[in-house]
Amino acid sequence: MLNRNPGHELSLRVVLFHQALADRLGINITDHKCLGILHEEGAIPAGRLAELTGLTTGAITAVIDRLERAGFVCREKDPKDRRRVIIQPNMEKAKNEIQPLMEPMIQEMSQLMSSFNQQELEAISRYIDKTIHILEQAASKLQKAKNTSRDK
Amino acid sequence: MLNRNPGHELSLRVVLFHQALADRLGINITDHKCLGILHEEGAIPAGRLAELTGLTTGAITAVIDRLERAGFVCREKDPKDRRRVIIQPNMEKAKNEIQPLMEPMIQEMSQLMSSFNQQELEAISRYIDKTIHILEQAASKLQKAKNTSRDK
Repeated sequence: MLNRNPGHELSLRVVLFHQALADRLGINITDHKCLGILHEEGAIPAGRLAELTGLTTGAITAVIDRLERAGFVCREKDPKDRRRVIIQPNMEKAKNEIQPLMEPMIQEMSQLMSSFNQQELEAISRYIDKTIHILEQAASKLQKAKNTSRDK
Repeated sequence: MLNRNPGHELSLRVVLFHQALADRLGINITDHKCLGILHEEGAIPAGRLAELTGLTTGAITAVIDRLERAGFVCREKDPKDRRRVIIQPNMEKAKNEIQPLMEPMIQEMSQLMSSFNQQELEAISRYIDKTIHILEQAASKLQKAKNTSRDK
């Protein structure tokens, strides 16, 4: 343990873990998180990915270019609307290359969570939900301020 | 909220917040977290920063180069050992440029934490400490495996 503030130390370790994972996969840390969204959501248009992450469409295009080059996604015509392009994640490649790297950590987290009683889990769940909300709002403010100053 | 797994969603939001912050500062996400360590630890040698983050000395050199170019740190001779170089964070610049961007989020997190009772705080604290430990170990394994395969 390093920092006195546990929240700072946690965010440091989240970033360093994801950096290490992204380095192993040969992609950027944000690319990997966008890929995570595609794994949860399935194939979606690039615009929807921009919406979910708060990244600009320009930034999302760069993310998808890198993921496509690395073979983790491909651009496909939307079967529901052939004029639209959707981003299709390569689930097979993720299962073979990403899951084995994350699995030990996921197992340990699952073991940790099973060590808490119901009341404790409720407190932790409230902490996580509220923190997600705070970070989402804070990121959105930073991104908006950046885009506004860029547009000037 | 997006992902079904709250731990995944939390890590996504941690990464996206730090990405947005790093974008605003014109540095990389890992650069910003290394800078956070320097703000907590004070001036330390590059080797110590490598040790604390698990990054290779090569990666740390690149981090320090970028932080130095952006004016957030400078390389100085260690007053205790003039043959040694230490990384000195520019606290004034951090106070003027980084703190105002983080302050609203820190305030909201502090408000959130004060809404929990002692028992809840203990559970949350155990969750955070154990998660830090799990992520630290997992990152270390990924980094070691990468360095080993690189050495081959």
